[in-house]
Amino acid sequence: MSFNSEYKNRTEYVESVLKKYLPEKEGLQKVIMEAMEYSLMAGGKRLRPILMLESYRLFGGEGMIIEPFMAAIEMIHTYSLVHDDLPAMDNDDYRRGRKTTHVVYGEDMGILAGDALLNYAFETACSAFDMDEADPRRTGRALQILAKKAGIYGMIGGQVVDVKESGHQIGGDVLDFIYRLKTGALIESSVMIGAVLAGASESEVHTMEQIAAKTGMAFQIQDDILDVTGSAEVLGKPVHSDEKNEKTTYVTWKGIEESGQEVARLTDEAVAGLKSLGKNDKFLEELLRWLVYREK
Amino acid sequence: MSFNSEYKNRTEYVESVLKKYLPEKEGLQKVIMEAMEYSLMAGGKRLRPILMLESYRLFGGEGMIIEPFMAAIEMIHTYSLVHDDLPAMDNDDYRRGRKTTHVVYGEDMGILAGDALLNYAFETACSAFDMDEADPRRTGRALQILAKKAGIYGMIGGQVVDVKESGHQIGGDVLDFIYRLKTGALIESSVMIGAVLAGASESEVHTMEQIAAKTGMAFQIQDDILDVTGSAEVLGKPVHSDEKNEKTTYVTWKGIEESGQEVARLTDEAVAGLKSLGKNDKFLEELLRWLVYREK
Repeated sequence: MSFNSEYKNRTEYVESVLKKYLPEKEGLQKVIMEAMEYSLMAGGKRLRPILMLESYRLFGGEGMIIEPFMAAIEMIHTYSLVHDDLPAMDNDDYRRGRKTTHVVYGEDMGILAGDALLNYAFETACSAFDMDEADPRRTGRALQILAKKAGIYGMIGGQVVDVKESGHQIGGDVLDFIYRLKTGALIESSVMIGAVLAGASESEVHTMEQIAAKTGMAFQIQDDILDVTGSAEVLGKPVHSDEKNEKTTYVTWKGIEESGQEVARLTDEAVAGLKSLGKNDKFLEELLRWLVYREK
Repeated sequence: MSFNSEYKNRTEYVESVLKKYLPEKEGLQKVIMEAMEYSLMAGGKRLRPILMLESYRLFGGEGMIIEPFMAAIEMIHTYSLVHDDLPAMDNDDYRRGRKTTHVVYGEDMGILAGDALLNYAFETACSAFDMDEADPRRTGRALQILAKKAGIYGMIGGQVVDVKESGHQIGGDVLDFIYRLKTGALIESSVMIGAVLAGASESEVHTMEQIAAKTGMAFQIQDDILDVTGSAEVLGKPVHSDEKNEKTTYVTWKGIEESGQEVARLTDEAVAGLKSLGKNDKFLEELLRWLVYREK
C-alpha cells in the first residue's frame, strides 16, 4: 500500500476514535458539546494521534487503551487552536477554510469550548483506568507526560513566550524555545505516551522523545518555509502571513535554503534515532520523511 | 479551640500546600508562573481544599497524598474565576479588592493563565502517582472525579448555561441546574476525592457526594442572600450586583425568607447525612453550619 493510502487509513481510524470519545450532545449545556465537536471535527492532519498510535505499535502495543489517549492529545491540540484564534490572541476568523469556533459560537463560548476540550482531554484519558487491560501505573505515567508536555513546561510555556515576544525582534535561542515547546512538546508527548502504554523501557521512551523533538522542530520549520513558498489553495490558509505580521521565523532568521537544510538534517537524525531502536517501521520512517516533502 | 481558630489553622495549612505546589518562577515563560501565583494566592476561603482535607481525615486518611489534590482543586477553582472575569465573560476588573488577572497581565495572558492553572491542576494531581504511599487505582479514581466534576458534566457545564441564559428570565429548574453544576460540582469532588484517597467505600463516597451537593446549594443560595443583605466592606465585593444585572437568583425567585429557610433545611440535611456515616467530626459539622451564618 502506498504511504498516502496508509496515512489515509490511519486518519480515518483517528476520526472514528474521536467520534467515539466525543460527548453526546445533550442537556441544558448542549451548545458546548456542539462547539467541541465543531472545533475537533474540523479536519486537519491528525498527526499527533497517528504518531502516538504508531509509537504504541512500534513497541508491540495491540490493545485499545491507546484510544482515549489518542483522543485526548487531539483535544488538547484543538483547544490550543481555539484559544489561539480568540480576538485577544491571534484574532483569526478562519481556520482550515472554516469559521473559527468563537466566530460561530461567540467569544464567551469560544473561551469555554477551549476550557471544555482541555478538561475533557483529561476526563477522556482518565477513562483508561476503567479499561480491563489497564495497568494503572502505566496509565498514570502516560497521564503525567500528557499533563507536563501540554502545560507551562511544554505547549503553554511556548505559547506564552510566542505571545509575549509578538511584534518584537527575537533571537534564534528564543525562536528555538518557542518551537520546541509550542509545537515540539505535544509531538514528544504523543510518541512517549504510545511507548509508555506499550510497555517500552524508560530509555526507549527517552529515545522516542528525542526523535519527536527533532521531528517537531522540522515540522515547524517546514511550516515557516511553506508560509513563503506554498500556495494558499493547497495550504487552506493565507500565505505570507509571517511577513505581514513581521514575525521572526526560521526563514527570516536563516533564509529559505538553510532552513530547508535544517529540516533535512533534523529528519535524517530522527530517522537514525528510529533505526537505533532496532525496530522496523517503514510507515513511521516514511512519515518522518514526509514532513520534509509535504506541501501542506 | 474555637471554630474560627480551627478554620484559620486549616487555611494556613492550605496556603502552605499551595505555595509548595506552585511552580518556580523561572524560564523565558516566567510571566505565566507569576500570573498563576497572583491569581492563586489572592486569598479566599479555601473552602474546597479544606473540605477535601476534612473528608480525607474523616475516613482515616493520614498521609500526604491528599496535598497535590488539595492544590489541584484550588487551581481549578481559581482558573474558573480568572476566565469568568475576562472581558468576554463577566468583564470584572476587581476581585477580592484586587485587580483581576487579565487587568494586571493583559487579556491574552489572562486566558493563558487560566489555561495554565487548569492544566497545572492535573499536572499537580498526577504527581501523586510518584508518592511512595500511592495506590495507583485510588489515585486514578480520584483523578477521574476531579476531571468529571470540573468539566462539561460539572463546573463548566454550569458555567455554560449561566453564560447562555445571562440576561434571560430563567425558571427554577435552570437555576438549580446552574447552582448544582457551577458551584456544587467542585464541592462534591472535593469531599469525594478526600474519601476515595482515604479508602472509603463506594457507598460512603456516594453519601459524601450527597452531603456536598446540599452544602454547595446552600452555599450558593447564601451568596444570593448576602448580595442583598450583606455589606460591600465585609464581603470585599460590590453588593446588589444581581439586581443591577437583572439576574435571576434564589432571592428573586423565592424571596429572602424562603431562601433562608432553604439554606437552613439543606444544611440540616447535610449534617444529618454526615451523622448517618456514624463518624464524629465536630469541625466538619460546624463548617457545614457556618455556611448558613457566614457574613462573607
